[in-house]
Amino acid sequence: MREEFSWPVRVYWEDTDAGGIVFYANYLRYFERARTEWLRAMGLEQSALRESSGGIFVVSEANLRYHQPARLDDELIVTVLPLEIGRASLTIQQQAWRKGRSGNALLCAAQVRVGWVDAGSYRPARMPPTILELLK
Amino acid sequence: MREEFSWPVRVYWEDTDAGGIVFYANYLRYFERARTEWLRAMGLEQSALRESSGGIFVVSEANLRYHQPARLDDELIVTVLPLEIGRASLTIQQQAWRKGRSGNALLCAAQVRVGWVDAGSYRPARMPPTILELLK
Amino acid sequence: MREEFSWPVRVYWEDTDAGGIVFYANYLRYFERARTEWLRAMGLEQSALRESSGGIFVVSEANLRYHQPARLDDELIVTVLPLEIGRASLTIQQQAWRKGRSGNALLCAAQVRVGWVDAGSYRPARMPPTILELLK
Amino acid sequence: MREEFSWPVRVYWEDTDAGGIVFYANYLRYFERARTEWLRAMGLEQSALRESSGGIFVVSEANLRYHQPARLDDELIVTVLPLEIGRASLTIQQQAWRKGRSGNALLCAAQVRVGWVDAGSYRPARMPPTILELLK
Repeated sequence: MREEFSWPVRVYWEDTDAGGIVFYANYLRYFERARTEWLRAMGLEQSALRESSGGIFVVSEANLRYHQPARLDDELIVTVLPLEIGRASLTIQQQAWRKGRSGNALLCAAQVRVGWVDAGSYRPARMPPTILELLK
Repeated sequence: MREEFSWPVRVYWEDTDAGGIVFYANYLRYFERARTEWLRAMGLEQSALRESSGGIFVVSEANLRYHQPARLDDELIVTVLPLEIGRASLTIQQQAWRKGRSGNALLCAAQVRVGWVDAGSYRPARMPPTILELLK
Repeated sequence: MREEFSWPVRVYWEDTDAGGIVFYANYLRYFERARTEWLRAMGLEQSALRESSGGIFVVSEANLRYHQPARLDDELIVTVLPLEIGRASLTIQQQAWRKGRSGNALLCAAQVRVGWVDAGSYRPARMPPTILELLK
Repeated sequence: MREEFSWPVRVYWEDTDAGGIVFYANYLRYFERARTEWLRAMGLEQSALRESSGGIFVVSEANLRYHQPARLDDELIVTVLPLEIGRASLTIQQQAWRKGRSGNALLCAAQVRVGWVDAGSYRPARMPPTILELLK
């Protein structure tokens, strides 16, 4: 699963701000949705993982570059590309693109680091081997 | 278009709160997405409508009843059923259901009143005839 | 504590939408903040209540009327007035006003019903007597 | 105004997620509130600036490190420290701390780059001299 995964996102009123564009914090929500669907496409559902293993993924770093704004009704494509897969964390490259007739435009690019932690204590933990195998 | 329209919604981390369930204000977001897609299914895109007519839809009333909570990873079905279509406003019945193997469960039911206003002054205005014809 | 309680709220970019106004779902957030601070003013902190009693408040009904829009940088006053206090639920009247030099303007009025439930099962439960006494 | 500015933020239900902690995207909201209040403390109100100059600030980069989670009812202190002030953009260091009896704990640290753009075209522009003077 080291290929790029894509997930469509539509821009609704809830996503926009008084500048007429998508509020920049919302790209983190879009990236999260895409990561969740990327995991689900591998058969990993986070609520089930939590119940079976007692662990959850948490974001430990996010580095975002904003290139162009998105607007109401825009159709976006959000991508997930794992760059590094360790025993306790993943580094993932993510992008949000606006679909257009004359090609897609890059709106926001991010590098997100996600760690595996105990769901009670939030202390770093080793990912269950089943997850690691699927990711590798 | 007086039949019921349905739109699927998935519950992500962004939607939940520390009670482990979907934060109740977020049903208004889900209902908005479903209304937007209901309009789009009729060929009405709100950003284009605003540019061509200078008007937008705004919510003037919302009455919500919460029945059961939704949780992370739940698949919901959100419905739109117009109850009354006037010259300046619509009354719409909306419901959010959780899809389940043994049938769907009603989570939240709402009646939402949406008015048509001038996008600059926010004063009530008459809907463009093209919208009215599509809605009726 | 049957008098009206007030809590100030400032409108930030995060609160607005592409209509240039506060996204209507956000009044539920403002009302929640005011209810939380109303409880805190009585010495009730919800996270502590949950740990000591195993119960939490959940919204079971919300009826909202939108009168005027709020905009970026507006200063709002959000009120809490308990109308009915039962053993398992409260009915609360809430309003959001915009502060202005020539008087305040009513933006949104709501009636919110809040029930007490077990934090695990979300089943209705009787409020701990300490809460009831403080509320009455 | 090159000193550190601080702004208090309280954690409400709306801020949390099903992990029982503040949803990580919300730190961008907290940082935005603090920057807005930092500008306001200098006499700069963004809605008035936009009307008078036709320009707005937009975030062009955000680099976030998450250290510890915040929980419901926590009291946070959010800081603003300008690192670089250019003609078209600012680089700002921001931190969110949890207030505690035995000292404060760093929850999230960020470096945020904010550019000045034309509010219509979103093209980079030079900041009005009045802003630059206040910032320097």
